[in-house]
Amino acid sequence: MDRMIYLDHAATTRPFPETVEAMLPFYGKYYGNASSGYELGEDSKEAMEEARQKIADTMGVPKDTIYFTSGGTESNNWVLRQAGEKWRHKGSHIITTRIEHPAVLKTCGDLEKQGMEVTYLDVDRQGMVNLAQLRRSITRKTILVSIMYANNEIGTIQPLREIGRITSRAGVLLHTDAVQAYGHIPVYPGAFHGDFLTASGHKFNGPKGTGFLYIRDKNTLDPWQTGGGQEKGMRSGTENIPGIVGLGTSAEISCRNMQEKITRLCRLRDYMIRRILGEIPGSILNGHPLRRLPGNVNVSFPGVDGAAVAAMLDLEGICVSSASACSTGSSRPSHVLKAIGRDDRAAYGAVRMTLGEENTKEEIDITVEKLKKAVSYL
Amino acid sequence: MDRMIYLDHAATTRPFPETVEAMLPFYGKYYGNASSGYELGEDSKEAMEEARQKIADTMGVPKDTIYFTSGGTESNNWVLRQAGEKWRHKGSHIITTRIEHPAVLKTCGDLEKQGMEVTYLDVDRQGMVNLAQLRRSITRKTILVSIMYANNEIGTIQPLREIGRITSRAGVLLHTDAVQAYGHIPVYPGAFHGDFLTASGHKFNGPKGTGFLYIRDKNTLDPWQTGGGQEKGMRSGTENIPGIVGLGTSAEISCRNMQEKITRLCRLRDYMIRRILGEIPGSILNGHPLRRLPGNVNVSFPGVDGAAVAAMLDLEGICVSSASACSTGSSRPSHVLKAIGRDDRAAYGAVRMTLGEENTKEEIDITVEKLKKAVSYL
Repeated sequence: MDRMIYLDHAATTRPFPETVEAMLPFYGKYYGNASSGYELGEDSKEAMEEARQKIADTMGVPKDTIYFTSGGTESNNWVLRQAGEKWRHKGSHIITTRIEHPAVLKTCGDLEKQGMEVTYLDVDRQGMVNLAQLRRSITRKTILVSIMYANNEIGTIQPLREIGRITSRAGVLLHTDAVQAYGHIPVYPGAFHGDFLTASGHKFNGPKGTGFLYIRDKNTLDPWQTGGGQEKGMRSGTENIPGIVGLGTSAEISCRNMQEKITRLCRLRDYMIRRILGEIPGSILNGHPLRRLPGNVNVSFPGVDGAAVAAMLDLEGICVSSASACSTGSSRPSHVLKAIGRDDRAAYGAVRMTLGEENTKEEIDITVEKLKKAVSYL
Repeated sequence: MDRMIYLDHAATTRPFPETVEAMLPFYGKYYGNASSGYELGEDSKEAMEEARQKIADTMGVPKDTIYFTSGGTESNNWVLRQAGEKWRHKGSHIITTRIEHPAVLKTCGDLEKQGMEVTYLDVDRQGMVNLAQLRRSITRKTILVSIMYANNEIGTIQPLREIGRITSRAGVLLHTDAVQAYGHIPVYPGAFHGDFLTASGHKFNGPKGTGFLYIRDKNTLDPWQTGGGQEKGMRSGTENIPGIVGLGTSAEISCRNMQEKITRLCRLRDYMIRRILGEIPGSILNGHPLRRLPGNVNVSFPGVDGAAVAAMLDLEGICVSSASACSTGSSRPSHVLKAIGRDDRAAYGAVRMTLGEENTKEEIDITVEKLKKAVSYL
């Protein structure tokens, strides 16, 4: 474990030491309930509002548009299930894409069973959503468009500005699952007329079990959990103060000097892609060559079992993913790779390596060598 | 803050040092996603299953009946909203009580708006639920009975065995919100035919943002969050491993030597109640004198403003509550105190003090003296 090379940052990340340090006092001395009137409670409340402000600042939005949740899946479920509920009188049509995370796709499937109509937009061979199809799909019954900011498997970044221009002109609410994007690339809901935005703490070196939902206007969404009325009555439940403090700290650090970090990571990513495509015969890149997340490398070795490659690298202490961590255990080919037109041989032969700030060129070199060995062996 | 006397353990508790210690490695070295196939992921998964086993052991139930959530409010919302969904074909009637926590009451109010029929059982002057009324209220359309294990304001413990006998004979699902009971008094779902049980980590010296739902048979409930399929497809979302590890540790410690702790705490509680009732003229006890939570002291000083008493004690470094922390900020009298027949004068004059293991007789003496001063001053 000590010489582990971790290349699965899209699955989860290690909390920053500063994040853990910021959380610790709230697991100890400052343990008050933020709803309590006395000083100990006020301390918790202040810390929580400070974290809310930090997050709002990273996106240039008002503080009161940030609602704390237990993570990305909760935020996605909230928007999809409760926006529908709210606008049932207007219509019952939602538009999303074929390449969303299961937290969106499975939820849409559930909503379909409940009578909602869902359109799944196609993507091109690089994973870019079909904008003409989006335009055509919006009807008078459409209440919500939900399109991910960047894909968790292939890293393709969607044209949110163009999407937002279409939805705002049509007067349709726009949600984006920004779980893979927030904290890694600039995300400004104001710039693309976003109504809702989902983020997850553990994807940007924050604590697991934390996340937030940006809600531009709280009148456009029904509450998620009902009860004590926390989060302005939108998400009841005693606030997870240590988690929220950690979330705020990680957000602040992740978004600091972002351009420098992006530049460095893109260089490392492109170096890795170049070496793999150049040195492993038959390998192909999945996702967009340019419009992709700074840390995402997803390659297929058609005819080779991606899961077996991942297992062989694991033996060498290298953590990679043969699919998204969320579909691990399922033996079906990735719905994302199918959506971009990969055949079964290429889909089953995919390996995802997602880099983080702490990865070095040396680690990449070691990984490429082990990868070459594994692929040629298999 | 250093000489603070904390008497608000029903609002929240300080995590055990052992709990924080157990969590820390999972904020550091062991940060893997439990769904990942490699060793780092397996470490997380193992730790999670160990915590699940610890919790199951405290209640004598199979490990696979424990589902991790983000807290009590989520667990309560899950059962109420998804049990209804599941059994809509059978009927649309839920039975609960007038003295539930808002996480149940507000949710039932929401369900009523959606067409569900809800019966709110009365309680007697000591807060005990009316069993004859429960029996009468069950119809062929009844799908769920939700009765709290112990009340958060007045501490009254409900007769769950009798309740469970009634619901199981009638073939109706039984849920209990055990947020105030679990970790404090013995809770065995098997002993009262419980189908669902809600618990919250931060109420028994565990981390905020954690909790669980006991589900006897997963076929009786629809999933809560949909997505990656975690928690056997019942509650998707990357698992909060540090939180879950902390939850398991706190559960284990809280339930260890429980009888001794109960005996000691009951003695301290009864000493405090005796002194207050004996030394402060006009004071009355709210809740049952015997069937009450070991740490709960709730007294009314009719004609005196309970919130002002709490504020005066705060100035002396003593944390108490003038209502449940969850209704703080609202200026309406407690629905619980109204339900047990207190008039407005007594309801507004209520002060809740909830003791914990670390409280001493000396702290109780100091508090009673300050309380006497505050009440006579006001």
